[in-house]
Amino acid sequence: MLENIISPLEVQKLNINELNDLADEIRKFILSTVSETGGHLAPSLGTVELTVALFNVFNLENDQIVWDVGHQSYTHKILTDRRNRFKTLRTFGGISGFPKRSESKYDAFGVGHASTSISAALGLLIANEINNRKNKVIAVIGDGALTGGESFEALNHAGQLKKNLIVVLNDNAMSIDKNVGALSEYLSQIRLTPRYRQAKRDFESFVKRIPIASIGDKILSTANSIKYGVKSAISAGGLFEALGFVYIGPVDGHDIKAMQETFARVKELNEPVIVHVHTVKGKGYAPAEDSPDKFHGVGRFDVATGEVEKKLTPPTYTSIFSRAVIDCAKVNEKLVAITAAMPSGTGLKTFSEMFPERFFDVGIAEEHALTLAAGMAAGGLHPVVALYSTFAQRGYDQLLHDVCLQNLPLTLCLDRAGLVGEDGPTHHGVFDLSYLRHIPNMSVLAPKDENELRQMFFAAVERESPIAIRYPRGAGTGATVLKKVAPLPWGKSELISKFNGEADAAIFAVGSMVVPALKAADILKSKRIYVNVINVRFVKPLDEEMIIEQSKAARLLLTCEENVLIGGYGSAAAECLIDHGITKKLIRLGIDDRFVEHGSRAELLELCGLSPERIAATIEENINKKPGISLKKNSR
Amino acid sequence: MLENIISPLEVQKLNINELNDLADEIRKFILSTVSETGGHLAPSLGTVELTVALFNVFNLENDQIVWDVGHQSYTHKILTDRRNRFKTLRTFGGISGFPKRSESKYDAFGVGHASTSISAALGLLIANEINNRKNKVIAVIGDGALTGGESFEALNHAGQLKKNLIVVLNDNAMSIDKNVGALSEYLSQIRLTPRYRQAKRDFESFVKRIPIASIGDKILSTANSIKYGVKSAISAGGLFEALGFVYIGPVDGHDIKAMQETFARVKELNEPVIVHVHTVKGKGYAPAEDSPDKFHGVGRFDVATGEVEKKLTPPTYTSIFSRAVIDCAKVNEKLVAITAAMPSGTGLKTFSEMFPERFFDVGIAEEHALTLAAGMAAGGLHPVVALYSTFAQRGYDQLLHDVCLQNLPLTLCLDRAGLVGEDGPTHHGVFDLSYLRHIPNMSVLAPKDENELRQMFFAAVERESPIAIRYPRGAGTGATVLKKVAPLPWGKSELISKFNGEADAAIFAVGSMVVPALKAADILKSKRIYVNVINVRFVKPLDEEMIIEQSKAARLLLTCEENVLIGGYGSAAAECLIDHGITKKLIRLGIDDRFVEHGSRAELLELCGLSPERIAATIEENINKKPGISLKKNSR
Repeated sequence: MLENIISPLEVQKLNINELNDLADEIRKFILSTVSETGGHLAPSLGTVELTVALFNVFNLENDQIVWDVGHQSYTHKILTDRRNRFKTLRTFGGISGFPKRSESKYDAFGVGHASTSISAALGLLIANEINNRKNKVIAVIGDGALTGGESFEALNHAGQLKKNLIVVLNDNAMSIDKNVGALSEYLSQIRLTPRYRQAKRDFESFVKRIPIASIGDKILSTANSIKYGVKSAISAGGLFEALGFVYIGPVDGHDIKAMQETFARVKELNEPVIVHVHTVKGKGYAPAEDSPDKFHGVGRFDVATGEVEKKLTPPTYTSIFSRAVIDCAKVNEKLVAITAAMPSGTGLKTFSEMFPERFFDVGIAEEHALTLAAGMAAGGLHPVVALYSTFAQRGYDQLLHDVCLQNLPLTLCLDRAGLVGEDGPTHHGVFDLSYLRHIPNMSVLAPKDENELRQMFFAAVERESPIAIRYPRGAGTGATVLKKVAPLPWGKSELISKFNGEADAAIFAVGSMVVPALKAADILKSKRIYVNVINVRFVKPLDEEMIIEQSKAARLLLTCEENVLIGGYGSAAAECLIDHGITKKLIRLGIDDRFVEHGSRAELLELCGLSPERIAATIEENINKKPGISLKKNSR
Repeated sequence: MLENIISPLEVQKLNINELNDLADEIRKFILSTVSETGGHLAPSLGTVELTVALFNVFNLENDQIVWDVGHQSYTHKILTDRRNRFKTLRTFGGISGFPKRSESKYDAFGVGHASTSISAALGLLIANEINNRKNKVIAVIGDGALTGGESFEALNHAGQLKKNLIVVLNDNAMSIDKNVGALSEYLSQIRLTPRYRQAKRDFESFVKRIPIASIGDKILSTANSIKYGVKSAISAGGLFEALGFVYIGPVDGHDIKAMQETFARVKELNEPVIVHVHTVKGKGYAPAEDSPDKFHGVGRFDVATGEVEKKLTPPTYTSIFSRAVIDCAKVNEKLVAITAAMPSGTGLKTFSEMFPERFFDVGIAEEHALTLAAGMAAGGLHPVVALYSTFAQRGYDQLLHDVCLQNLPLTLCLDRAGLVGEDGPTHHGVFDLSYLRHIPNMSVLAPKDENELRQMFFAAVERESPIAIRYPRGAGTGATVLKKVAPLPWGKSELISKFNGEADAAIFAVGSMVVPALKAADILKSKRIYVNVINVRFVKPLDEEMIIEQSKAARLLLTCEENVLIGGYGSAAAECLIDHGITKKLIRLGIDDRFVEHGSRAELLELCGLSPERIAATIEENINKKPGISLKKNSR
């Protein structure tokens, strides 16, 4: 049946049995494909019926769906124009794991970070109205993403505008891990009360009894009921009604018929409405239902056994951090740890079990995470905030205004810094060096390997000012991790490979670039080109002495970083040379002024000129050029 | 009486009549002082009684108050240790207009940007608990600041933790302008219903009837009432109860006795509680009550007449923007304008009256403002988002992830860029060039004067990619503003003052620095030092040709910007020279790697070496130095 769906409009023509069959077929298709490609399995298995129901009721040639985060949009992709390319999911040149405007006209808005869908959908709705287009706009948002403050800002705005924005709350009680917060408790209480089982029937008979136009105006709107002094029983959706939304639900998110009937009525309203849909993450695949966190974003796996292919031999940076934070906490009573809905992803799960009183998962709420940490630090603690580099962007202002302006102690552990690979441009952590470096009082560190991560972490938590440590996604270098911690000379880079005499070049490598730089040096050595390699360690404070020293010791300087070139470490080195009036050649390698697509980390590093071979080639090309000539043109 | 308050603890000893007298005295003191110094009058007049009541009930030697934004904290400052220095308010070297940890031990947490107080207070509370301190923590937040998403994130977290966080909602129905959004409507409906007048009495008799310990546990908590299947009437605070808070209110925020009784009971609870206090912005001073927006942040004024001293002869940049956006909107139907609770401050007030359907005030919600704009742009509109530079920091991730990654058309107008003066470090807009420049697809413009602002604006709204225009606070240069718009050569700097022959120096001046640079050139000319002056115009895309050309035409290059040196325009120029292997001397003037205190703009520019005299002196000092020598050491 799936093969006959050429246009999404054909889903509108199917009867309920056909819709159910279609959903089954899609689920199998997702399962078999993602078991080969890897991807966001559990979220997408949870929304198969929901997507089918939406496509059945709405006209996808006109109506627009904004998927929050977008990791639940595989059915959407398959039903629009990407079924045949679905097997290229998340591969270099293949289709993205997230909705993307440039990929399909059916992707109304590109997503990746959480909590943007209601804002974006409201923007589309307003634009349609001004452009006299009469289509519907639907935001589909998980209960996890709903905890992000931007969602609330959008509800607050939309609730006042009285437009028919349709928000589908895809409630599975999970973000990546179990969802947390008062809102989550509130939603689960709605689901657990006797009212729940009644809700669908109640709503149906209720709606059928009353002329559509009057529903929102007279009955369901709390705002109005307050206005007219009507006292009603506490409704399951009181919170949303207080924000000016009509609340409907909960509806079973795997019952296509129930959703079909609900959506059909909802689209006739003239007010903002929340449809609370209850889904099961990983639905229909037992291993994913049992371990939805493990199957949230998953690599290749065996469908029959649910066994996930393991490829990482050296431990990941995450696991080293995980151990370091526990070892520190044992001796440092002031250490507390905060994460934003990522206890597993950031490696704080074990910590949370060992030190429950000192662990805080704030939900998807990076802004709050950082100001909360600032408050804790003002109260004498040393907070460790573990975030993915890309998501820490959400807390830029809080880091600057609440943490750094007050110079409060904080260790910000930025996992997934640099190119993350398959998740692509919404998830690459390639801006952190630039957005952190210019904030006064901030220190910015990058370990060359997993052992140095541990060393840096121990040094950071002893200090009285804000420090960020950024490290890449995935396996470490295989370095031996020493339990014993050696002192870390603050602000000092490390000269790790030195040619005896004037070197042809000196490579200043930041964090993950140290190993490739050493490999590049090896390649060049065989060609009798001699290169010093410096482990930068401190992007800030900058080791100006080392730069000045190497400007004398080597004929060419090179900086390497998994970060945008503008404002990053190479930029710091350029500032240093210029400020000191040093006229040495410097080549800056890193990410040009553009967004990098998805693909494997190795493919992307090669693409960006950051593989050992390309680093070596760049040095070889430039080694004999004269000064004063344009060396490398970086687009800016 | 005020003179006898040496320690804040003495407020605890006063009886109700004395407290009322004290409040009157403080109000007069604030009024007479601020009429001389300028400052945040209306917010602080609204919280005199509230502060007195808090100081009466809580022990300020142990208990901590976090004032959201902090512009309402004058009574707090006067009652702690700053009465004698209060006349130095907001002057260079004097006391800050905001709470500040380094200023007083009674300032528990530094503030300035909105919506941080609940997060910070929760952090302090947790720290106290871990440190075995038994004090209370109170966050005082306005209804305006409550719309910021971070507040919601914090409520969601605090509501689950079940700790006695006390949130005082200081509801005056205003942010700077009238507050907006569904939440604001909800609060005003609470105040307007018959229930309102009853509320205080209801609560009092209610509380007296029931043993304190059981209040939160059994009756007021919605979460629990759902759990036990208890149906209760829709409560005024249903929204907060759904988030796990006990809600109490509204209480008259000018009735010290009522607040005294409420706070006394609230501090015995073991749950998070919201006390909804209704205040009048500008209370007790008729001109401020009548025009709370005008008296929000005000200059010197005549207490008797309420007339505000006018000093700005040339029109402000804000007023030029205000006119430009209207003129554009008349011919460009796709133009819509968005602000975050700043219609007056950003100059969109008149636009909002002329084009109500195309104007959107989203409340204090910069994140939503930018994603909403992205949605509108995806829907075919051209959104103009007007924010203060410092507040735009809140939307960094949305700008990067939602706007720029999708390369959507948007004109971001950043008012108050550079040093803002008296509001100090929380409000200086000195990071925007650095946090914008490294985002791909972004253009960053800075006009040299008010005429160029208009020209740039007209050019920006015609383009199909994201553009930021940043301009300073206050009066323009007095330039004639041409109605007719000339084409703006994209990405080209303007050579505005050129010496015939090799110049001694070339100054690349960004925006507000062009006039001082021209003055510096004049000063130097009298000393026979000849300087070219370039109006940078485009911080991005960078005019590399102009930099290369001037590196040949002048003996020394200088960049001048009201921005941090790290990652700013000077950094771009350094990157350019280095990437092209040009060995020219470049001196970068701007803000060193530190936060700049408060003071007048002129004082701060002088302090940062950005006055005409200091620019001229820097050139004179360096003009005869040899290359290769360390020229200027910028702390980094």
